[in-house]
Amino acid sequence: MAKQKKAKAETAGGLLEQLRVPEGPVDLTTYDPRATTGFTGVKDDGKLALEALGAEVSDWQERLFAEGRKGAERSVLLVLQGMDTSGKGGVIRHGAGLMDPQGLKITSFKAPTPAEKRRGFLWRIRQAVPGHGMIGIFDRSHYEDVLIARVRNLVAPNVWDKRYDQINDFEAELAESGVTLLKCYLHISPEEQKLRLEERLDNPTKHWKYNPGDVDERQLWPDYMDAYHAAIERCNSEQSPWFVIPSDRKWYRNWAVTTLLLETLKGLDPQWPAADFDIAKEKQRLAAT
Amino acid sequence: MAKQKKAKAETAGGLLEQLRVPEGPVDLTTYDPRATTGFTGVKDDGKLALEALGAEVSDWQERLFAEGRKGAERSVLLVLQGMDTSGKGGVIRHGAGLMDPQGLKITSFKAPTPAEKRRGFLWRIRQAVPGHGMIGIFDRSHYEDVLIARVRNLVAPNVWDKRYDQINDFEAELAESGVTLLKCYLHISPEEQKLRLEERLDNPTKHWKYNPGDVDERQLWPDYMDAYHAAIERCNSEQSPWFVIPSDRKWYRNWAVTTLLLETLKGLDPQWPAADFDIAKEKQRLAAT
Repeated sequence: MAKQKKAKAETAGGLLEQLRVPEGPVDLTTYDPRATTGFTGVKDDGKLALEALGAEVSDWQERLFAEGRKGAERSVLLVLQGMDTSGKGGVIRHGAGLMDPQGLKITSFKAPTPAEKRRGFLWRIRQAVPGHGMIGIFDRSHYEDVLIARVRNLVAPNVWDKRYDQINDFEAELAESGVTLLKCYLHISPEEQKLRLEERLDNPTKHWKYNPGDVDERQLWPDYMDAYHAAIERCNSEQSPWFVIPSDRKWYRNWAVTTLLLETLKGLDPQWPAADFDIAKEKQRLAAT
Repeated sequence: MAKQKKAKAETAGGLLEQLRVPEGPVDLTTYDPRATTGFTGVKDDGKLALEALGAEVSDWQERLFAEGRKGAERSVLLVLQGMDTSGKGGVIRHGAGLMDPQGLKITSFKAPTPAEKRRGFLWRIRQAVPGHGMIGIFDRSHYEDVLIARVRNLVAPNVWDKRYDQINDFEAELAESGVTLLKCYLHISPEEQKLRLEERLDNPTKHWKYNPGDVDERQLWPDYMDAYHAAIERCNSEQSPWFVIPSDRKWYRNWAVTTLLLETLKGLDPQWPAADFDIAKEKQRLAAT
């Protein structure tokens, strides 16, 4: 109980407000990737605070799930974007991992297959939209279609340029259909990425996570930043805002995304559904068995 | 560390062997639903022991996932069956919830839709088979097609009677394609079910889980037991055995299924994949960035 109170106090400032990207021009170099916005304490405190969120975020998740089972048409969709090693998987493991896996729908988007490409870039995204009552998580997303697709010239400029509007239309449609988006850019420095890639090379239990292509992508860092600036700036609205998560400190990143998810759930304020049967009568029927 | 050692000692006996249903006639009345087979201790010990399994089972899960990403064609499929309130959801929440949700594929089977029925009872099951490196979990399964389908006469006797062989063929096919099945029957007493249904009726945060149809099903308990006897007896092979999990004690049930999963993963013994790149060369390339 003490733990939960502490976590509550720390989120009282409203992390959603603090980490939200203001509308207008975006320059990620003005964001400190080592910041611990909204949190007072060091690493060990952060890990404890994350654990302490478990019970509360699970409770809200179950309420959302419960109302979804009884006809409410709402869901949450956490979109995780960031450079390699920024910790999309870590957030899912340590943050989403606190919740009931039955209420999660996690989709990891790799390079699209030829069949997926034929159907337009949003087709596979639409397939993965969470059902009512679910928390969806995208590990990469439709934003790759204006990030790697732009940086790597996978499509012509007039094609990717149209996609910002297409994404805005798509996200407006999601909002109308009851999906609350939480779009998080996990912000790491190139120096931190280098350390993390070195660690993967040094540790045999992490070799499977290393891909020589990561170094090629790394060399295009400034191009990726330009693409991120455009994506965040052009697809950042009141209804579907972006959040920049300082991510050089893994513990802060995990705490921050989980806190944003918790605040989002609380904002939806899902309620335990009322009984759709006669309680007294059911008690009698059950007693008679 | 101390915790992990304790848990290891407790599983040293081999719970897979202890809870496995021997081939031959099956009579569930001879199994004690309050047993704590393979575990020495009471409720609080059981909860601690479950927590202590978290790190170890997650580690094996990640190994399985890693080898799957590098070409190994193996997966695990946990099938959960049991009467209403036996705790299929509880096992997923508290046991599977210890693992990384990215490596889980959970499917909850409800009454089949008309489109699903047209395709044959195994069609939707095949759609949900876990990919390489994944741990699949079925909350109910193809066994419903010889359980409720039989008890409720949803299909003619000659139809459900053929399904046992069809299930055996399907499961043999799964085994050949690298899927290790772990089929668990969560064994509760009718008295315990009554208590749990009463609790759902008494607790407004659980009303959404209550369905008046549960009492109707409850009244058919002996018929369901007959159907379970037939299903377990006729679909119980060396390669694809059934396990009966005493489930009147929730803490034991969660510990037992998680332990069976851990032993299954250890039996597969997935190894961290070796680097498929030149480590020294990659270190140089990275250093140059």
